[in-house]
Amino acid sequence: MAPISDDLIGSLNHAGAAAQAEDYAALGRQLARRGLSIDSLTERAMAWTVAVPTWGVGTGGTRFARFPGPGEPRNIHDKLEDCGVIQQLTRGTRTVSPHFPWDKVSDYNALRQEAAQYGLGFDAVNSNTFQDQLGQSLSYKFGSLAHAQAPTRAQAVEHNLECIEIGRQLGSTALTVWIGDGTNFAGQQNLTRMFENYLEAAAQIYAGLPADWLMFIEHKMYEPAFYSTVISDWGSNLIAAQTLGPKAKCLVDLGHHAPNTNIEQIVARLVQVGKLAGFHFNDSKYGDDDLDAGSVDPFRLFLVFNELVDAETRGAKDFRPAYMIDQSHNVTDPIESLMASAMEIARAYLQASLVDRAALAEAQEANDVLAAHRMLKAAYITDVSPILAEARMRAGGALDPIAAYRAAGYRAQKTAERPAVAGSSSGIV
Amino acid sequence: MAPISDDLIGSLNHAGAAAQAEDYAALGRQLARRGLSIDSLTERAMAWTVAVPTWGVGTGGTRFARFPGPGEPRNIHDKLEDCGVIQQLTRGTRTVSPHFPWDKVSDYNALRQEAAQYGLGFDAVNSNTFQDQLGQSLSYKFGSLAHAQAPTRAQAVEHNLECIEIGRQLGSTALTVWIGDGTNFAGQQNLTRMFENYLEAAAQIYAGLPADWLMFIEHKMYEPAFYSTVISDWGSNLIAAQTLGPKAKCLVDLGHHAPNTNIEQIVARLVQVGKLAGFHFNDSKYGDDDLDAGSVDPFRLFLVFNELVDAETRGAKDFRPAYMIDQSHNVTDPIESLMASAMEIARAYLQASLVDRAALAEAQEANDVLAAHRMLKAAYITDVSPILAEARMRAGGALDPIAAYRAAGYRAQKTAERPAVAGSSSGIV
Amino acid sequence: MAPISDDLIGSLNHAGAAAQAEDYAALGRQLARRGLSIDSLTERAMAWTVAVPTWGVGTGGTRFARFPGPGEPRNIHDKLEDCGVIQQLTRGTRTVSPHFPWDKVSDYNALRQEAAQYGLGFDAVNSNTFQDQLGQSLSYKFGSLAHAQAPTRAQAVEHNLECIEIGRQLGSTALTVWIGDGTNFAGQQNLTRMFENYLEAAAQIYAGLPADWLMFIEHKMYEPAFYSTVISDWGSNLIAAQTLGPKAKCLVDLGHHAPNTNIEQIVARLVQVGKLAGFHFNDSKYGDDDLDAGSVDPFRLFLVFNELVDAETRGAKDFRPAYMIDQSHNVTDPIESLMASAMEIARAYLQASLVDRAALAEAQEANDVLAAHRMLKAAYITDVSPILAEARMRAGGALDPIAAYRAAGYRAQKTAERPAVAGSSSGIV
Amino acid sequence: MAPISDDLIGSLNHAGAAAQAEDYAALGRQLARRGLSIDSLTERAMAWTVAVPTWGVGTGGTRFARFPGPGEPRNIHDKLEDCGVIQQLTRGTRTVSPHFPWDKVSDYNALRQEAAQYGLGFDAVNSNTFQDQLGQSLSYKFGSLAHAQAPTRAQAVEHNLECIEIGRQLGSTALTVWIGDGTNFAGQQNLTRMFENYLEAAAQIYAGLPADWLMFIEHKMYEPAFYSTVISDWGSNLIAAQTLGPKAKCLVDLGHHAPNTNIEQIVARLVQVGKLAGFHFNDSKYGDDDLDAGSVDPFRLFLVFNELVDAETRGAKDFRPAYMIDQSHNVTDPIESLMASAMEIARAYLQASLVDRAALAEAQEANDVLAAHRMLKAAYITDVSPILAEARMRAGGALDPIAAYRAAGYRAQKTAERPAVAGSSSGIV
Repeated sequence: MAPISDDLIGSLNHAGAAAQAEDYAALGRQLARRGLSIDSLTERAMAWTVAVPTWGVGTGGTRFARFPGPGEPRNIHDKLEDCGVIQQLTRGTRTVSPHFPWDKVSDYNALRQEAAQYGLGFDAVNSNTFQDQLGQSLSYKFGSLAHAQAPTRAQAVEHNLECIEIGRQLGSTALTVWIGDGTNFAGQQNLTRMFENYLEAAAQIYAGLPADWLMFIEHKMYEPAFYSTVISDWGSNLIAAQTLGPKAKCLVDLGHHAPNTNIEQIVARLVQVGKLAGFHFNDSKYGDDDLDAGSVDPFRLFLVFNELVDAETRGAKDFRPAYMIDQSHNVTDPIESLMASAMEIARAYLQASLVDRAALAEAQEANDVLAAHRMLKAAYITDVSPILAEARMRAGGALDPIAAYRAAGYRAQKTAERPAVAGSSSGIV
Repeated sequence: MAPISDDLIGSLNHAGAAAQAEDYAALGRQLARRGLSIDSLTERAMAWTVAVPTWGVGTGGTRFARFPGPGEPRNIHDKLEDCGVIQQLTRGTRTVSPHFPWDKVSDYNALRQEAAQYGLGFDAVNSNTFQDQLGQSLSYKFGSLAHAQAPTRAQAVEHNLECIEIGRQLGSTALTVWIGDGTNFAGQQNLTRMFENYLEAAAQIYAGLPADWLMFIEHKMYEPAFYSTVISDWGSNLIAAQTLGPKAKCLVDLGHHAPNTNIEQIVARLVQVGKLAGFHFNDSKYGDDDLDAGSVDPFRLFLVFNELVDAETRGAKDFRPAYMIDQSHNVTDPIESLMASAMEIARAYLQASLVDRAALAEAQEANDVLAAHRMLKAAYITDVSPILAEARMRAGGALDPIAAYRAAGYRAQKTAERPAVAGSSSGIV
Repeated sequence: MAPISDDLIGSLNHAGAAAQAEDYAALGRQLARRGLSIDSLTERAMAWTVAVPTWGVGTGGTRFARFPGPGEPRNIHDKLEDCGVIQQLTRGTRTVSPHFPWDKVSDYNALRQEAAQYGLGFDAVNSNTFQDQLGQSLSYKFGSLAHAQAPTRAQAVEHNLECIEIGRQLGSTALTVWIGDGTNFAGQQNLTRMFENYLEAAAQIYAGLPADWLMFIEHKMYEPAFYSTVISDWGSNLIAAQTLGPKAKCLVDLGHHAPNTNIEQIVARLVQVGKLAGFHFNDSKYGDDDLDAGSVDPFRLFLVFNELVDAETRGAKDFRPAYMIDQSHNVTDPIESLMASAMEIARAYLQASLVDRAALAEAQEANDVLAAHRMLKAAYITDVSPILAEARMRAGGALDPIAAYRAAGYRAQKTAERPAVAGSSSGIV
Repeated sequence: MAPISDDLIGSLNHAGAAAQAEDYAALGRQLARRGLSIDSLTERAMAWTVAVPTWGVGTGGTRFARFPGPGEPRNIHDKLEDCGVIQQLTRGTRTVSPHFPWDKVSDYNALRQEAAQYGLGFDAVNSNTFQDQLGQSLSYKFGSLAHAQAPTRAQAVEHNLECIEIGRQLGSTALTVWIGDGTNFAGQQNLTRMFENYLEAAAQIYAGLPADWLMFIEHKMYEPAFYSTVISDWGSNLIAAQTLGPKAKCLVDLGHHAPNTNIEQIVARLVQVGKLAGFHFNDSKYGDDDLDAGSVDPFRLFLVFNELVDAETRGAKDFRPAYMIDQSHNVTDPIESLMASAMEIARAYLQASLVDRAALAEAQEANDVLAAHRMLKAAYITDVSPILAEARMRAGGALDPIAAYRAAGYRAQKTAERPAVAGSSSGIV
């Protein structure tokens, strides 16, 4: 069930094949001079994958407005189809991460099969206790897992346990818990009691995890709470993960930190203590802007991957990070942004793989600062696009996914098929 | 037409009168020792006023959720009533600032009379081109006054001209223009062309200003745009105001600056060049958090007023700033927050009025740094609450407005009168 | 051995006594109405003390310049005398925190007795491996405890062990370890290996702690390293303290965090896990500005004390924080700044003591956000100056320490006694 | 007078020539497919030049410590020799920017000829009123051009006039004025009066400019002043430049802005109003870190050049920016860092030259956000190293300047020739 015509992809790939071959060969020769095998790198690129969030294919917005695009997905079935396009063309997004209650259906086995037809599996399940749902008995206005009152905490725990059950049926093995709980005023809540409430509630969720599941805890500096946030930084996240147990790990969203923060060092620290859950990739300039990965500070993205490849290379203990995109597409076609982002992330991963880690360690040991820095820079400025393209084509994807997507007229077709609906649940996060 | 029973206010004031008299007398003696007359200060407090935004009486929200409170105003008539409560109890919010199209009615003369019954006049009129309205022909998704395409800019100009016309009928003498125009991606627009487009469109609005009107231009660092914003800082704002002409001035919102910015110096600069329009008061810890004025950094609020009182004292040229509250009340009763904020702002104003500016100038001239700083601090730590309370009571307001409001049961009464409506336009900004 | 004439202090106190008595009585009546006993609060103020750093009495500087003041202390003996003035006048700074090698002498028992004559004891000892000393065999240019090479790490460990030995002789029971180790370039060092090196070296220092000693680890976001810092945040600090053992705790310097950070929540977290060592008090607007405590954001200082008093009230486990001032006095008389800061810190502590914690907890439980916030604000706006003055006078100090200091002509006298020396070690941190 | 053996350079270039030819040819073919001529780009690279600051060849430091490197320049003659190496190897740094009084000599004509022997001319002259010099009559502790007292301001004006006179003899045509003036405490000075003092003093300097000279005013958010800075942002800078006249322009240092600031938009604004003086290139993560250009956020550097090339392309009025590096080299060999930085800056310039501005404008007009963004990204990810290398070699420089510098043993040779001196004036800024 391929959303885009494979014939179209093939003919477009054919048209660009000669130029790609020339660039690939030239890069191969250059890399060979640097002691690197381009084919190994292409294999590495083919093995790479990052999850796409189901809500990401809808148009996002701000507190001021949301400007929907044409042909928006109306439900999880439309979303799967859109995610199928991304996977078909890029071949590097083999799972989707669902969100409940947004993606609720009556038959999850059927949903799992539906996804499989697009070549998609299910990644971590996301719960939602930052919004009130129709018919919900208690409001999350003043918090959920960290609410001052026990009944609201219990309701939020219950929802997370339900998400685990759904995830079990979908083949997921992780629950991602992000809560907006916090305060807007000094004194609104006791900061310690609020965290104790959170830890107690989170322990009940943790207790409900199947044996092979992990619990991903996501920290964020602020928003929706503007004075304090319960899990505001990796320090609080770490305490939570330590308190809960070995199945609890800390998720890093690139836009959830204070200005000027060295995020790659936080990644290194979490790897070191065996608590890195994985990532929500996006980019940001100001706050949790949820912009496309690599669009603001691509060198930072590279430096994060430099830590990840370093951990992989040295065989860091318990190192199995989960990778997911988490963006809000307010002014672009979400499918295009997600394809572009998936490719930018793969680019950073591959560039980080070019570093000669033995030589780097030697320069570091000798305090040859400039040489060490330039080794990273040499990897970063290498344009690995030909490798990424080769990997896509070998896997059946498109040489240029965005060009192919536009050529296929997918959005126009969906605009006709999917009449606009008011109050869609997609794209808000 | 007093929303709250004056008898109730009177009896509550009576109950607290003795304590108030004692505190007022004690403070009076202390101030006299410092060479200050408490009665002059009380008169100063009575003369103070700050405008309340009509949208402020609704519950605000974030991009994640909005949790409405009970008894929310359904329309401009309800909003005026709520604003009337604030003025009745605090006696320091004698105007309201309306927002269009949210506050549209068919008869503005009637609206003006309706407001007058609450003792309220109309302050600056606010236009809205950051949201699409039902039936609007062109979308603001990619901008309004700075849109790449002329027809959209023309539509946005037209809306502003309509706001001026409405404002004229309401007795306003200023138009506040805040636009969300900007970009989410480097390259999305040409930064220079975008500003040129803005200046050209703004000039058309400027040309439509009545002779005695001012145009307030509001800058903001980011949000809803996350890579660049056309009027992102006071430098861009200043260029715009200089380009447009003497009736264009720069509005300062305390939450619209980069982290760590010294806002009071920006205020001083704008006063110096005769371009300070006035303020949107609120407080913030992270971004444009729109929290209650003085709730995060009350000393900063004091330092802003220190500049304003300094400018007033030295008779700075063209110094007639407009004062307005602009907050988003997500977790409090908006009426309570607005009353508390109005009092915090008056507190800062009054504290700044305690500074002996001649002595300060002398210490500054002598580079007696510590002495100069401590003169500000001495003013700041003075608890002027008894003066503020006295001023309220003398003007017919409440000794303790929040206690009186709660005692009156206004919110419960309105909850019964105003059934909840979905999609209310209030409280989003 | 009182540096300032007690007669002078007495006569100045006498001159101000009537006004003080009036203000104290008025405040006492107001507090009584609020259910608080002013005399208990005065006793509380008298029991309060904060340590003064020996280097703080010298003039500080920036990388651009240091502008020494007149009469600067030339050695630890001069510094003790200056610290003696601070304690004599404020009566709230009963210990000093020495720094080595800056404060090295040949006879530490004699130094201890010399300090005792000023009524001073010794607080935590500070080591210094962020500068090279004359005759030092290996340089700290590329790091100390986290240096890439073992011999440099060993040298730094050795210095810390020597500091412990000196501290033992001085009666200290804690070692404060702040290192500047970090990198200026991505890739300069392996972030993980650097931390491992640090942990290994720190463990050797930890092993050398006497049984009743604590080790205070201080984190700082950046400077002198500008890309990464080994102990850059409280998360890394916590991991270090957890790894080392129960005697290792995390020190909070108010200027060592990322912009916008909610520091009081970090304090709450560290208290909660029993790892709060204590504080280096100062204030800052941009980076580690080391300005006078409470001079930039006094409400933040209050909120930190709100957490501390809350922890004290609820009897938090292992809660015995050490309090020290750490400032750089670039444009003020250091003695004046330290006295003013000691009083500001005591003010915040006392204001936090005014909060009715049972009523606060009740409002929090009920999600009465505004009421809860206003309870903190009511405490904060209370001018407790009369209580602080009363506590000073009852303890033999000055009603107005800065006025007394100026009247005594201490600085002029020292300017005559202490000829300027080049390259003084004081005041750089 | 070539500091490095041209034979050595030649033989190293020869050894790498084949690989360079292959990479150059491959890139040429790729660019040709994109409609770009590699030879035009190489010519463009050859025409590029950026000035090197004389103080940059010394080792910098922080307020905590300075760790000198071996073979440091002892005076302006040594500095010129080091700058000569940079120009000889990179061929893109044809001027130096001197600093007074650090670079004072008795015969400036001789100095000019000495520089010419290294192929160097003199760029903007830098004054220094942020430090006290031996024998200076009035201190700058409390300010210089903005000092509260007229005699100190006059002394600072006098120094700047002397710098102009020296610069005239050296063939400079611009004076760069950066002052540290500001305050550490709210209230220390009147913010308005301080700026008025500055404007009055600056006007006297401006009046002393030769007809063909420009005055470059440099703003900086903070440091050495930590509460307020007179010229803290581009808004204040703009007012100053507007007040002074057409010869006064605003200099942008990449590290002198608030966190998260969109610097490229500031560049665009200054170009638009004809007030962009030029740049002090460096990079930073936290404050004014003065790290190597492009080492922290190379995409930001590219985006700045994207504005510059855009302005060049559209023929912006009065657009003749001056380019200078301004870095502090604390842990690297300054010569290596300056060569690497000069190359990174040229890289960004060249990458920005790859953008098809007509196609970009078309995508912008159509609000094709993703396409527009990706046009910038396509330019940015292009590795233009072969062009930069080709340009260097064609101009007589080194294929790999840092490798050649190391091979030449220049630093070891200078270490022998230049005995270490204490208190060197280099490298502090």
